[in-house]
Amino acid sequence: MKEKFYKYIENLQDKITSTLEAIDGKAIFKEDLWERHDGGGGRTRVIENGDVFEKGGVNISAVHGELAPAMQKYFNVGDVDFFACGLSLVLHPKNPMVPTVHANWRYFEMYDKNGNTIDQWFGGGQDLTPYYLFEQDAIHFHSICQRACNNHNAEFYQKYKKQCDEYFWNTHRNEARGIGGLFFDYCKPTEETTIENWYNFVTEVGDSFLEAYVPIVEKRKNLEYSREQRDWQEIRRGRYVEFNLVHDKGTLFGLKTNGRIESILMSLPPHVQWVYDHHPQPGSEEIKLLKVLENPRDWV
Amino acid sequence: MKEKFYKYIENLQDKITSTLEAIDGKAIFKEDLWERHDGGGGRTRVIENGDVFEKGGVNISAVHGELAPAMQKYFNVGDVDFFACGLSLVLHPKNPMVPTVHANWRYFEMYDKNGNTIDQWFGGGQDLTPYYLFEQDAIHFHSICQRACNNHNAEFYQKYKKQCDEYFWNTHRNEARGIGGLFFDYCKPTEETTIENWYNFVTEVGDSFLEAYVPIVEKRKNLEYSREQRDWQEIRRGRYVEFNLVHDKGTLFGLKTNGRIESILMSLPPHVQWVYDHHPQPGSEEIKLLKVLENPRDWV
Repeated sequence: MKEKFYKYIENLQDKITSTLEAIDGKAIFKEDLWERHDGGGGRTRVIENGDVFEKGGVNISAVHGELAPAMQKYFNVGDVDFFACGLSLVLHPKNPMVPTVHANWRYFEMYDKNGNTIDQWFGGGQDLTPYYLFEQDAIHFHSICQRACNNHNAEFYQKYKKQCDEYFWNTHRNEARGIGGLFFDYCKPTEETTIENWYNFVTEVGDSFLEAYVPIVEKRKNLEYSREQRDWQEIRRGRYVEFNLVHDKGTLFGLKTNGRIESILMSLPPHVQWVYDHHPQPGSEEIKLLKVLENPRDWV
Repeated sequence: MKEKFYKYIENLQDKITSTLEAIDGKAIFKEDLWERHDGGGGRTRVIENGDVFEKGGVNISAVHGELAPAMQKYFNVGDVDFFACGLSLVLHPKNPMVPTVHANWRYFEMYDKNGNTIDQWFGGGQDLTPYYLFEQDAIHFHSICQRACNNHNAEFYQKYKKQCDEYFWNTHRNEARGIGGLFFDYCKPTEETTIENWYNFVTEVGDSFLEAYVPIVEKRKNLEYSREQRDWQEIRRGRYVEFNLVHDKGTLFGLKTNGRIESILMSLPPHVQWVYDHHPQPGSEEIKLLKVLENPRDWV
């Protein structure tokens, strides 16, 4: 399974980066291959200063070795070995009318000291962070998420949509990071399902990503915007930074377990503002977005 | 002691904000009075878009009530009451030749459920974060810190300078946030000293702040700078954000114990950049700064 899934994310990375380069038309992804001191490595691809994508990364990695003490504690296991691989992406478009997007698909295995597999699971998801709310775009993104789920289990979409709203919650701001999508974790074989079924589900979500995001980019990338709208985007990007650095488990584990810092922090936006006690005008488009972030909505 | 110290920080806030307004010449501090739901409140003063200070806050607060569970765990105490007051300031100048500065002076008391004081201590410090290194400025700042210390104990400067370098260490970047200054905490009465002696020490450091920082601002605020130097400042501000959101205990406790978010996060810089895998030119002024951040130096 680990070879099969790694092969999948290698191909998916190629497909996503070549599609995004074609959309951008100006910038191309810079590739960095890196090795992890204690086993494994990754292929980081970052795009910067494009016509459409101001900054973004589409990274894969496959790492293995002894599970770090902080992770042992987190997973409530003893001294075990692990393998983990996944694709992580974040795209920060230049135009504030185009939403930021994040996606991640990952696979994890744990072994006892004799090399026997003692646990295995998939995790991941995809979620959208608009700066201006086009309801049509939110409905499109969630519809694609729902369709990918419905091919596997009628309950997945509702469940993973809810988990996404809960996970990407900026508790100290009392608002969501964005308008959500899917978030799932610990997808393990049980009496009812196999790891192959989970593979089929996770890869179907992975395959749906470009269909979920690209039509939104195409529709909004040439819209005009003002300096004030750009300021609003940069202020909202501040909330993105706050979530990733204060609450996001993946980021914090990466920072605390000697991950490759530049690959982890590629998720941070290029230009960001913090303005003291900023409040948009009542009745504005900015307030319309905030209302949805404070009370996540059902989109499909 | 709590009334006496609160009076002190009230006066110090007035003195600092009026001095900074005079230096800026354009912007003035906006004052927000706020109340804490569970007891106490604060007086937040924020300056934005000045000629010298792009953003900054000089805040005081005095809060009291039942110690939150997260804080009980941190201090390793049971269900006790507390009082805490302090002044916190962060100033982000516009000109990259002028360093960012942070300072904090605080006093804490804990009581049993009969209202008896069971613990009391002072904490605080002041530290400098330059974007370009003028050794003369670093020496000046540390000299003033040293003088304030030496009036009380010949060992304080070395001890608190070292603690400052250790505390403001961005572990995930393996570099200091800035060039340090002083950091002290849990300054309690013992057989050798009284809480009044600590009051005298902490207020002497507080009184030294303007003398430590203002001459540096005056000397550098009119220096010319390029767009590239401004970019470097904004990239380095990103490291400031990373430290405050990932590592700073005060910020994280504030965020996790329902503090006033806008007063806590006034510390975040106004305009910030994250550039993937940024490395300055060998031999440049930027590299000169990095070398000092990677290996904190003795300045006096």
